[in-house]
Amino acid sequence: MHPFDRLTLETLRAKSCLKWTHYSALQGARDVLPLWVADMDFPPAQAIIGALEARARSGNLGYPAGYPGGEPGLQAAVAAWLDARHGWRVAESDIWPLHGVIPGLYLGVRALASSGEAVVLQPPLYPPFMAAVADTGRETQHNPLVWTGTQWAFDLDQLDALIRPHTRALVLCNPHNPTGRVFSREELAALAELVLRHRLWVISDELHSDLVYPGAQHVPFASLGDEVAERTVTLLGPTKSFNLAGLKVGFVITQNAALRKRLERLGAGLVTPPNVMAQAAARAAYTQGAGWLEDTLAYLQRNRDLVTRFVEAYLPGSAYAPPEGTYLAWLDLRGLGLGETLYERLLACGVGLSEGRHNGPGGEGFARLNFATTTTILEEALERLRGGLRLG
Amino acid sequence: MHPFDRLTLETLRAKSCLKWTHYSALQGARDVLPLWVADMDFPPAQAIIGALEARARSGNLGYPAGYPGGEPGLQAAVAAWLDARHGWRVAESDIWPLHGVIPGLYLGVRALASSGEAVVLQPPLYPPFMAAVADTGRETQHNPLVWTGTQWAFDLDQLDALIRPHTRALVLCNPHNPTGRVFSREELAALAELVLRHRLWVISDELHSDLVYPGAQHVPFASLGDEVAERTVTLLGPTKSFNLAGLKVGFVITQNAALRKRLERLGAGLVTPPNVMAQAAARAAYTQGAGWLEDTLAYLQRNRDLVTRFVEAYLPGSAYAPPEGTYLAWLDLRGLGLGETLYERLLACGVGLSEGRHNGPGGEGFARLNFATTTTILEEALERLRGGLRLG
Ligand SMILES: Cc1ncc(COP(=O)(O)O)c(C=O)c1O
Ligand SMILES: Cc1ncc(COP(=O)(O)O)c(C=O)c1O
Repeated sequence: MHPFDRLTLETLRAKSCLKWTHYSALQGARDVLPLWVADMDFPPAQAIIGALEARARSGNLGYPAGYPGGEPGLQAAVAAWLDARHGWRVAESDIWPLHGVIPGLYLGVRALASSGEAVVLQPPLYPPFMAAVADTGRETQHNPLVWTGTQWAFDLDQLDALIRPHTRALVLCNPHNPTGRVFSREELAALAELVLRHRLWVISDELHSDLVYPGAQHVPFASLGDEVAERTVTLLGPTKSFNLAGLKVGFVITQNAALRKRLERLGAGLVTPPNVMAQAAARAAYTQGAGWLEDTLAYLQRNRDLVTRFVEAYLPGSAYAPPEGTYLAWLDLRGLGLGETLYERLLACGVGLSEGRHNGPGGEGFARLNFATTTTILEEALERLRGGLRLG
Repeated sequence: MHPFDRLTLETLRAKSCLKWTHYSALQGARDVLPLWVADMDFPPAQAIIGALEARARSGNLGYPAGYPGGEPGLQAAVAAWLDARHGWRVAESDIWPLHGVIPGLYLGVRALASSGEAVVLQPPLYPPFMAAVADTGRETQHNPLVWTGTQWAFDLDQLDALIRPHTRALVLCNPHNPTGRVFSREELAALAELVLRHRLWVISDELHSDLVYPGAQHVPFASLGDEVAERTVTLLGPTKSFNLAGLKVGFVITQNAALRKRLERLGAGLVTPPNVMAQAAARAAYTQGAGWLEDTLAYLQRNRDLVTRFVEAYLPGSAYAPPEGTYLAWLDLRGLGLGETLYERLLACGVGLSEGRHNGPGGEGFARLNFATTTTILEEALERLRGGLRLG
């Protein structure tokens, strides 16, 4: 029995966190199994908890050494991790620690396109990508992923046709939230060719890059070559892989010094380093977290396979491919013909999923399922869906 | 013997923090006593450390309940504290938790003056105030405090004369960094009258408002009346009073709903809530920290009195008044005629102070001394200054 299997519904229901309190606050939805927001139900690695406890006990909570940069060893830990796991060599000084990933996204959009210029998004997508473009007064150009019959893929012909003189940047999400795609080196190289040809800039959100299952391999977009690196802002961090979203820590990586300066200028006073606890946790994750992560990935992979068997059995012929990374499954429920009532129907089954229509054009009729819960809860949720939606 | 007196130079020298590592990294400055950056050398309240440890141990480090606002109870704790300590009633929903105080300052400057419009500063001041106006492309108008012979005070006649049609906002710092002034209700009311008459907006940085010594009383600027509250953005937080600057947490308070919306829009995606550890610490500070704070204030007051006796003995006639709040003393060393060599001379004495010329016009020849250290270290630092500067 895996320790994660000892987590009970009672314990999770009592947890003061967004994932579990959201539905219990909804009238009549107390029994909903919340497989929505991208947190895992598992406790983080003991090494991370220990590092946080030690930092608290030290009483050393003032301005840290290295301020306003990271504390000594922080960027080195990130650089060593990227090298070891992804074969990507990044200078420590090119790694900029921030109080989240989203601040890096907003800075990137501001830095790479001016007001009124266009940014390409590839829906279905993580909703804040759309907000980042809209909130900053940039124009959105959608280049939806296409379903090839077996997989979600870039539509580069459509992208090529889409680009206008005022198109400046593209936001890439790899591994991809919500589809779980981990794009191959070939796919990324083809995208990079197009990016260079049109002189676009890229924000590459690689936050899920450590959550990749056997058979797939994460390729950092900026690692494709010096010219690509020049035009790329990479976003990553330990919050998804190590289940630390509440700690608010992300890293912006760019190997273009002028661009880094521009990002810093745009963020002056508004963005800050992660706080000392988040820094301690990130350092512990990247230096001592690999074992926990491997074990967690193995657990997640079994859950992923459960979801896949469910889809094969009860949603045959739907646009679904087993996620190669992330703990998210993108379920094609269009065949049920539920339209706007989809979310309510899922809720009536007692399962809280994220509605696909929030993921941009083409998301209608889809739902995102977060399988980072116990196998027991996942099985129960799938059984509820099967029964409640009268599948199979 | 107070527990703070047990802190040794060896312990502090070994602490990995900005205050203590800065000089040890400087060639030949290993023996400098660092009385500069605004951290206390004291360990924070055990209640805060305990709250951080408990939060870490819980393993509950994902998106918190209440996200993207504060966790349940956070704003209530701030509101109860402001009411109890300052008699200021603020609705919980008017308290906006952020990842620092400076982000609130930058948002305030952006929200209250447009690019090219002017913002009034009252030097000597906390250097980021100048950066906030410059970085955002607003114009700075300086309205220096005046030395009345016994005290630093607002110069309202000069302010009245200074205001132009494009003057939009004023940044107030109360209690005042670096002079330690706690402005009286009468002084603040006179400033408020002028503010209302000219329809200015005010950013009131009240971060030091819980560090006030007997005899003075902090009056929140926005508490002076509804019209004043409408035009005020207040910044405060637990980081100075409870020695938690590395945790990065501040609160922006405004009772003007349209202004709050504007601040939120300007910060969209770039500012975030404080992380869950910082929230736990802030809540613990405001609900269980009062005892620690009283005790620490008593200790600080004795140190303040040491500094005052030193100035009276060795810098007679200088522009110095005992700080009514903060743990900062603003030393008038103009009489030494050291000009640009002041900082080097202080360093040669073996004491690291903050150079007054960084505090804006009029700061030349002054130095800021942070007396939040052990009495032993403070005495040694004052003795070094006396000897090294050949005072008395
Ligand atoms: C692709 C992606 N980027 C960014 C984020 C958000 O990161 P943060 O909340 O740490 O800023 C998420 C969260 O789920 C995500 O999936
Ligand atoms: C008056 C004042 N405002 C703001 C700050 C900075 O706050 P933070 O570093 O928490 O953003 C300080 C720090 O010393 C300060 O003295």
